[in-house]
Amino acid sequence: MVTTELRRDPITGRSVLIDLAPQIHPNDFLLEPVRLDDARAACPFCEGREAYAGPELLAWRDGGSANTPGWSVRVVANRRPMLRIEGGQDRRLDGVFESRDGLGAHEVIIETPIHDEPLQHLAADRLWRVLWAWRTRLQDLKRDTRFAAAVVFKNHGRAAGARLDHAHSQIAAYPIVPAALDEKVRGSGEHYGRTSRCIFCDITAQELQRGRRMVSDTLPIIAIAPFASRVPFETWILPRDHAPRFQETTDATLESTAVVLRDVMARVDWALEQPAYNLVLHTAPFSGDADAGFHWHLELIPRVTRWSGLEWGAGIPRNPVTPEEAARVLRGVVLPSSPPVTRVGAGL
Amino acid sequence: MVTTELRRDPITGRSVLIDLAPQIHPNDFLLEPVRLDDARAACPFCEGREAYAGPELLAWRDGGSANTPGWSVRVVANRRPMLRIEGGQDRRLDGVFESRDGLGAHEVIIETPIHDEPLQHLAADRLWRVLWAWRTRLQDLKRDTRFAAAVVFKNHGRAAGARLDHAHSQIAAYPIVPAALDEKVRGSGEHYGRTSRCIFCDITAQELQRGRRMVSDTLPIIAIAPFASRVPFETWILPRDHAPRFQETTDATLESTAVVLRDVMARVDWALEQPAYNLVLHTAPFSGDADAGFHWHLELIPRVTRWSGLEWGAGIPRNPVTPEEAARVLRGVVLPSSPPVTRVGAGL
Repeated sequence: MVTTELRRDPITGRSVLIDLAPQIHPNDFLLEPVRLDDARAACPFCEGREAYAGPELLAWRDGGSANTPGWSVRVVANRRPMLRIEGGQDRRLDGVFESRDGLGAHEVIIETPIHDEPLQHLAADRLWRVLWAWRTRLQDLKRDTRFAAAVVFKNHGRAAGARLDHAHSQIAAYPIVPAALDEKVRGSGEHYGRTSRCIFCDITAQELQRGRRMVSDTLPIIAIAPFASRVPFETWILPRDHAPRFQETTDATLESTAVVLRDVMARVDWALEQPAYNLVLHTAPFSGDADAGFHWHLELIPRVTRWSGLEWGAGIPRNPVTPEEAARVLRGVVLPSSPPVTRVGAGL
Repeated sequence: MVTTELRRDPITGRSVLIDLAPQIHPNDFLLEPVRLDDARAACPFCEGREAYAGPELLAWRDGGSANTPGWSVRVVANRRPMLRIEGGQDRRLDGVFESRDGLGAHEVIIETPIHDEPLQHLAADRLWRVLWAWRTRLQDLKRDTRFAAAVVFKNHGRAAGARLDHAHSQIAAYPIVPAALDEKVRGSGEHYGRTSRCIFCDITAQELQRGRRMVSDTLPIIAIAPFASRVPFETWILPRDHAPRFQETTDATLESTAVVLRDVMARVDWALEQPAYNLVLHTAPFSGDADAGFHWHLELIPRVTRWSGLEWGAGIPRNPVTPEEAARVLRGVVLPSSPPVTRVGAGL
């Protein structure tokens, strides 16, 4: 007998349908190959081809000068940006329709100089540099008062929307708070208004106490399978203690984040046999009063199922694997022990 | 130079980023094959295999008795339902978490007895019978006062989430108003509260006057490329005049809908070379006060691009084709003239 449960996301109020016993359909897992196998000789992100990706906005360098080899992480402007720093802030009205320029920033973080090295294979000290680049660029973008918020995201694999195999993430700064962040800000604000408590603090405390959905509990950064997971093995990585803004993270907390993220990605990679995935960083909007009720957090979203007319039409995803089962599987993965984080080299 | 525009959906308030000049990346169109090529001999939806799909809730028959051949459209309960009519209505609370039984209905509309006949190839009189089945089932489901709303959706092709090649749609009735419908109901309610006008009436009037985003203007049913289209060639089919509930549609309006839907699907099939697609029917919730500000409408959503971390992380899709360009292309498609609709046979 098939039995499902409608679960309400305590932050956004959105519902998901969870199959309480796993419901796996064979055709669901006949997915596209993860790798694009794009032409390595033409890759604009490989070391030695810096001119193709464009001038660097930031780099972690152990040697070399700007726009030459010697970097381990490199940030450039997106060559086909969806948002541009040139543009007006005015809204255009045409009857019931409203539009405005695509004002903002759209940058690419090249996570490694090596073509075949996915993010999840980086040692923790190198993963730290990627997080450092995110933090540094967020600090800079926040200074432009025309931007309301920024989101970092990553597409790994064809099914996740990747267009290049070479590991990279993207950062987008918007003139409005984008909807996916806005609904969390509004939902957490309502919770704070009602209870004077942060919903993220409430969730992390309750999950640590219960344990069923914990994937990693090495404080100060924890990993959980969210109660209303939208897809199988969705995992969130976030600070237990109150911390609304990723760009204010200390070096030490960034280290803990790198260690936990690396550990979680390795577990997911093992459990789902190297799936395509998206990674999303949500941090509080640049201005406004979200801070009291918000934690920055990373969403790791494996892309092993397809979005169908169900999700488009109802907006209630069906998740065939409970988060409790996903967390149990991820906790059970036995990994070779990771080396401790060591940071060498210096920033730009 | 890449230039984009942020457009606000006048119903939901959600934004999309539209590339004002087409931005097509070669890897974007290396998509999965549409057909699953599943085993025809094992297809539970083919005529003669009625026992495999289960007892029929409804059928359009030209002959035969229930659960035997002779039907052209057949409705059965989903064999792996995500919602069940057995279940309680109580909410379960566990600290900050809230859940409830997956109470509802989940049915399958088998759109044709023939394995290799996609919906978009049906003659208008046979398409009419599919719409008739949707209408009849909605009328019945509305009687169960535990259900708040129902959504009809269809997955055609692997990239759209289809699990079987044999043409079918699904209807899901929920104990809550699902999020994708709820945000339209709330947005249109706010517009009505502010203006005493229906936003759908405003949109259809403005689009008919301007013409740039019209795909079909054969009243009473029109087709438009929505101003804030989320994907290339998204097309909405809806009544120009106020009509909140699909299940109250007259036979004659259902005929017009079948003719326009068939015409639009043929144009999209031609323009995008037989893409995977989703089709969604939104009708006003079963109860509540949405009626004054709402039109039932069909969303045709071609699935020729992938959802990436951008859509997950920001909730602001990037659409590389303007709706004005999509409408221009669709209007320009030259089709062989369709035969007039004739209805024969009788319902269950």
